[in-house]
Amino acid sequence: MSEPARIGLLGHGTVGGAFADLVAERADAVAEIAGRRPEISGILRRSEGDFDEVLASSDIVIELIGGTEPAREYVLRALEAGKHVVTANKQLVAQHGDELFDAARDAGVQLRFEAAVAGAVPVIRVIQESLGATEIAKVFGIVNGTTNFILTEMAKTGASFSDVLARAQELGYAEADPTDDVSGADAAAKMAILARLAFGTPVGLEDVSFEGITDIQPDDLAYAKDLGLSLKLLGVAERREGGLSVRVFPCFLYGGHPLAPIEGPFNAVMVEAPAITEITMSGPGAGGLATATAVLGDVVSILSGEAPVHVPGERLEVVRDVASSFYLHLEVADRPGVLAAVADVLGKNGISVRSVVQRGTGQEARLVMVMHETPERAFYSALSELAKLDFMRATPRAIRVIEEEFV
Amino acid sequence: MSEPARIGLLGHGTVGGAFADLVAERADAVAEIAGRRPEISGILRRSEGDFDEVLASSDIVIELIGGTEPAREYVLRALEAGKHVVTANKQLVAQHGDELFDAARDAGVQLRFEAAVAGAVPVIRVIQESLGATEIAKVFGIVNGTTNFILTEMAKTGASFSDVLARAQELGYAEADPTDDVSGADAAAKMAILARLAFGTPVGLEDVSFEGITDIQPDDLAYAKDLGLSLKLLGVAERREGGLSVRVFPCFLYGGHPLAPIEGPFNAVMVEAPAITEITMSGPGAGGLATATAVLGDVVSILSGEAPVHVPGERLEVVRDVASSFYLHLEVADRPGVLAAVADVLGKNGISVRSVVQRGTGQEARLVMVMHETPERAFYSALSELAKLDFMRATPRAIRVIEEEFV
Repeated sequence: MSEPARIGLLGHGTVGGAFADLVAERADAVAEIAGRRPEISGILRRSEGDFDEVLASSDIVIELIGGTEPAREYVLRALEAGKHVVTANKQLVAQHGDELFDAARDAGVQLRFEAAVAGAVPVIRVIQESLGATEIAKVFGIVNGTTNFILTEMAKTGASFSDVLARAQELGYAEADPTDDVSGADAAAKMAILARLAFGTPVGLEDVSFEGITDIQPDDLAYAKDLGLSLKLLGVAERREGGLSVRVFPCFLYGGHPLAPIEGPFNAVMVEAPAITEITMSGPGAGGLATATAVLGDVVSILSGEAPVHVPGERLEVVRDVASSFYLHLEVADRPGVLAAVADVLGKNGISVRSVVQRGTGQEARLVMVMHETPERAFYSALSELAKLDFMRATPRAIRVIEEEFV
Repeated sequence: MSEPARIGLLGHGTVGGAFADLVAERADAVAEIAGRRPEISGILRRSEGDFDEVLASSDIVIELIGGTEPAREYVLRALEAGKHVVTANKQLVAQHGDELFDAARDAGVQLRFEAAVAGAVPVIRVIQESLGATEIAKVFGIVNGTTNFILTEMAKTGASFSDVLARAQELGYAEADPTDDVSGADAAAKMAILARLAFGTPVGLEDVSFEGITDIQPDDLAYAKDLGLSLKLLGVAERREGGLSVRVFPCFLYGGHPLAPIEGPFNAVMVEAPAITEITMSGPGAGGLATATAVLGDVVSILSGEAPVHVPGERLEVVRDVASSFYLHLEVADRPGVLAAVADVLGKNGISVRSVVQRGTGQEARLVMVMHETPERAFYSALSELAKLDFMRATPRAIRVIEEEFV
C-alpha cells in the first residue's frame, strides 16, 4: 500500500463536517479503488487552525469555506504550492475561473469542483469527460433547489411567494438571507461554470443575464395548470448565431418535457448535442452528505490520476437578443374590442398566438395567452405598447415558455 | 504535441463506421483535452484485414464486432499485449468479465466499456468514478430501448405485441431476430455489468433471472391506464438481506415515478445510495453515433490517464425469493361469490389488496387487482391456487408493480 493521501480541509460547517465523517467511513473503499488511503491531515475552522500549517501538511486541499475571499487566496496559494484542490464553491469558480485554471495548469495539478453545480448529480464530470470530445449545442436545467422547492409548493398549495419562502426557511430549504437563490444569482454562477466547460470558452458571471422568481404570482401558476404548464427557474446555456447565450429565467414547461416532473429541492440538467440527442441527469441538488459525496468522488479521481485539462478556447460572443416563447397575463376591462386590440398589437410586432384562456371577473377580465417563439426585443416592444392601452387594469406580466412538447 | 494515439478498430458496421468518422472529425478536440491526437491505424473488417497486423500497429484496441467469439479472444490478446481496450460488447463483459478484468489488471492496462450499457448515457462512469467510493444500495432502470419502444407503442395504440414488433422492425428499432431484446436477455447482460460495478462483486449472466415482454396483452395496458400505471421492462440490481438480487421483468410504475415518463427507445438508470438519495440519468439507449460517442469518451479517458481498478470484492450471495408487489388480471365467470373466493385465497397466503377494477363483459367478468408487497413465493403459490378455481375462464396473468409513489 502506498503512503496515505493527506487531506487539508478548509471549513468545517455542514458540508465540511459531513466530508470529514465520510472520509473516516469510506477510507478503505477509496484505498481499494484508488490505491491510496485518504486521511484528514489538518482542518482550518473559522476560529481555529492556521492555513499555512494545513497547507504544509497536505497533498490535497479541500475548500469548503464558501464566498470569494479568503477562499480565492487559499485556493490560489494551494495550487501554486503544487497541491491538488477540490472545491464546492460555485461563486469562486464562476468569478475567478480563469485565474484558478491558469494557476492549476501552471502548477500541473488538478482543480476539481463537481459539488459546485447540482450537488451529487455528476454534471461536471459528464460534460468534461464523457462528452469531453463532443460538440455540445446546449446545456440547460434546474440548478437551484431552493427556488424549485418554492415553485413546487406554490403550484401545489396556491400560496404566495412570501408565505412559501417562510415555510422553506423553516424547513431548511432556504437560507435566512435567500437573496442569492431567489434572485437567480446562484443559478447564474452555476450556468457560467457549465457554459465554460460545455463550450470551452471563458465565461464569467457578467456574461450571464438572470431573473429570479420573486415576482411570480399564485394566479400565474393557476392559469398555467389550465394550459398544461409547470413553472421552473431554468438556466440555459446555448450556442446561438455563432456566439453563445447564457441566461437564467422563470419559465413554463409543457407536461411532457423531461424537466417538468422535477419537483421539490431536486436539480436536473440536460445536455443536447447532435451526436447524442440529449442526456438528462437529475438528483438532490444540495444537502451536506450529497455534497460531501461529490467532493469525495473528486478526491478519488485525483488519486486515480486523471487530470481534465482546461485550455481556454476562443472567446465566443454573448448573444443577448435571443428568440423566446412567452406566456402573457393581462388584466383588462371586460368590454368588446379588447381582444382585437391586443391581437392587433401582437400582430404588428410579428408575434403569433398559440393559445388563449379568458375569464371574466365581473367588471374585469383576465386574458392569458401563450405565444409562439419571437425575438425577445419584439416581444418586449409589444409589451410596452400593451401596457399603454386604456383598458389595461394592471401591469402586464410575462413569463417565458419552452415551446417544445416532448410527446 | 506528443505522438498520435494509434487506434486499432475491430469491426466496421454501423457503430464502427460512425466511430471512424467521429475520430476523423473530433481528433483535434481530443488532442486539445487529452494531449494526444487519435488516429485509426488499422481496421479489421469481416472480410478484410488481419488481427495480428491491427494489434501490432495500435496503442488502443476498439472492439465493435459483437458476440462472444472471436471478440473474447481478440480482447484478451490485446490486453495481454499491453494495449488498452474499449468495447461496446455487453455480452462479452457480462459473460467473461472476470477473465477480462484479471487480464487488464495483470497487464496494467485499461478496459473500458461505457457503450455496453445505455449507449451515450454515462452510467458506467458515474457508478465507477463519481460514486466509486459510495455505498450503493440499488441500481435499476430501463436498459433496453427496443422493448421500451414496443411497450410505449402498445400503450399508445392498443395494438398487439406482434403488430408493434413488426412496426419496430420496419423502423429499425428492433432486429430481424429480436429474441435477445424481447426475452429480456439483453437487459440481463447489462444488469449483470451494472451489479458487478455497483456492488464490487463478481456477477455473471447466470446470476440474473429475467422475463421478457412477449406475453404482455393489450388489455393489461388498458387496465393499467385506469389504475394510473405505465408498463416498463425494468432491470433491478439491489442489496437484499446481506446478498444481492439481480432481475429483469416487466413492471408497472405509478405516474409520479421518475422512470414513468421515459418513452420510446430511450434508456434511463437510477442509482440509490443513502449518501445521495437517488440520481437518475436518461438518454438515447442506442444508435450508431451515440454509441460511437460513448466509445470516444472512453478513448479520451484512457489518453487522460485515469484507470479505474477492478478489484473483485467478496462474492455476495444471490437472493432469489424477494418481495414484490403484483398486478393480477383474472378472467372469471360473472356470478356471486367470485370476488370473495379470490380474496380468500389471497388472504390465506398473506397477500393484501391495494386496488381493484372489475368490469363485466356479459357472461364473464374481468377482475384486475394490484397487491401490496409480498414474498414472491407466497404470491405464486396463491396464483396456482387461483388458477384451479372452477370459475376461472383463462390462465391468471401477473405483472410486477413498483409500489412507491413518487408524489
